Amino acid sequence: MKKLINNTDNIVSEMLDGMTAAYPQYVKRLEGLEVLVRSSGPSPKVALVSGGGSGHEPSHGGFVGKGMLDGAVAGAVFTSPTPDQVFEAVRAVNGGKGVLLVIKNYTGDVMNFEMAADMARDEGIDVEQVIVADDVAVENSTWTTGRRGIAGTVFVHKIAGAAAEAGESLADVKRIAEKVIANVRSMGMAVNACTVPAVGKPSFELAEDEIEIGIGIHGEPGTHREHISPVDNISDTLLGKILAEGIYDSGDEVAVLINGMGGTPLMELFVANKHINAVLDGQGLKVARTIVGNYMTSLDMEGFSVTLLKLDDELKKYLNAPAETPAFVQA
Amino acid sequence: MKKLINNTDNIVSEMLDGMTAAYPQYVKRLEGLEVLVRSSGPSPKVALVSGGGSGHEPSHGGFVGKGMLDGAVAGAVFTSPTPDQVFEAVRAVNGGKGVLLVIKNYTGDVMNFEMAADMARDEGIDVEQVIVADDVAVENSTWTTGRRGIAGTVFVHKIAGAAAEAGESLADVKRIAEKVIANVRSMGMAVNACTVPAVGKPSFELAEDEIEIGIGIHGEPGTHREHISPVDNISDTLLGKILAEGIYDSGDEVAVLINGMGGTPLMELFVANKHINAVLDGQGLKVARTIVGNYMTSLDMEGFSVTLLKLDDELKKYLNAPAETPAFVQA
Repeated sequence: MKKLINNTDNIVSEMLDGMTAAYPQYVKRLEGLEVLVRSSGPSPKVALVSGGGSGHEPSHGGFVGKGMLDGAVAGAVFTSPTPDQVFEAVRAVNGGKGVLLVIKNYTGDVMNFEMAADMARDEGIDVEQVIVADDVAVENSTWTTGRRGIAGTVFVHKIAGAAAEAGESLADVKRIAEKVIANVRSMGMAVNACTVPAVGKPSFELAEDEIEIGIGIHGEPGTHREHISPVDNISDTLLGKILAEGIYDSGDEVAVLINGMGGTPLMELFVANKHINAVLDGQGLKVARTIVGNYMTSLDMEGFSVTLLKLDDELKKYLNAPAETPAFVQA
Repeated sequence: MKKLINNTDNIVSEMLDGMTAAYPQYVKRLEGLEVLVRSSGPSPKVALVSGGGSGHEPSHGGFVGKGMLDGAVAGAVFTSPTPDQVFEAVRAVNGGKGVLLVIKNYTGDVMNFEMAADMARDEGIDVEQVIVADDVAVENSTWTTGRRGIAGTVFVHKIAGAAAEAGESLADVKRIAEKVIANVRSMGMAVNACTVPAVGKPSFELAEDEIEIGIGIHGEPGTHREHISPVDNISDTLLGKILAEGIYDSGDEVAVLINGMGGTPLMELFVANKHINAVLDGQGLKVARTIVGNYMTSLDMEGFSVTLLKLDDELKKYLNAPAETPAFVQA
């Protein structure tokens, strides 16, 4: 294993310090905790807290800032943060209008975020939660009951974050987040697996001509392996499963996220997008917005995921609202 | 070789189409050419054109937009664009106030951009050029006389682009670009080499415990190989050579770019930045701005480069000015 790290024990802590050192205009770290919050402090609006295991950078700390998250809790690599860390994040960002937890659907995350919510409610903080489960690849998995939460989560951060920034109530921010979740679907694939630093070898091995379809973001196995083919074919497979959900109809406006898994060159993501854009156009879908890049990664995994979000006027307004965070800025 | 492409012959063309399909609000493609220009068309200001071989995405097409470039010319992978393509870019973006070419110092690029400049001058277009040579690793290299141009080029795009946007004259935009070039230095390393699609195997092979220091962005060999060590040590090596240039003095304000080479997880770049920030602080340098991410890549190479730019009030003002491009947005 060759990684640009110092040691596996404090990789998350060093990463968080490196992030605050790079972007002090947006984020600061809660002392002694693996939590990033806005450096501007809490404000009188609904606050959003997300997080999960580390290794998905820039998720989630990279999305803390105006118009997106108020706090992000970083667990160990691919490991849920503990309830006390989530609780401290909630306390720190609470501005008196309530806090919404954005949880990716993994058993550990759901359990620990819910415990933190209970702890916060005991202190009189109004806490609600939404659970993102956008991955159409599998119905249940190693670490989930139900579908996994993957790159679609970034649209929840963006849109619910903008709604909170605009002064919507906790009930409305939650309603809007749930509308995103109801209308967002994703699916991914890998050319090569990731290597968890503390493990030191790839999560799975693929042959020189083999790819894995339907992978998760923690090195979980996908639905099947197949011989590598042109990326247009691979995109058809991913998109086909997403479109088969039956929630995207001709004439709908959609937003697209072509998400790199961490080790895939941007060049290849753009090549993929040419065909994906054409397929969506051929389906009569109007692509109102596309984002291409590394947003919900899996360490050094090579591969990508496609995310489709059906828009209405409300979602579109908040998708296009300003944001200022380390990893996503919009004027 | 496992890559997410269709075929190696039209990878650049497909990438450019994928980029315009993703970001039509910023860029459009000149018909029949490997050139991206602003979708808003030319405006009455100095225009900036850059480019070079492909494989460095998001450079350079990803920086076309308000506050940065007006046009970017994409050669084949790691191959200079031809003079006629550069010439067409210059013609397309010329708004009557002159055009500045931002060239990375590679023999082919310099020759072809200069030929294009001559062709444009023959048509009465006022063209100037600057050559970026920020890589302190080597004094001459496979494809250069003098130092190579690498990630520091992004600061030239940002700062000279903002100066042009602010209405500065061609002479002043050139002067400001040259000031950036005089004050910017970079150095990179690789954990694993990149694979050029048309070649199909890595540009060089490193052992399981070996890294290469001083690499270029085209799979060129570095200055030497060494046993992998903690990233703090590696950063000390890169930064040490940059600081030894003697242009950064205690009390100076600097901007920092921690640039991923394409296959390196963001987590590792942030870990590197923690130490780099501390070292700069220890040197009495004031870090006014840090950018962390994939900006000048080398396909799927795993590794990173460090760039340091000494700021004055003029450079700082334009570094912090707004930008709206596919790969860099600033409010």
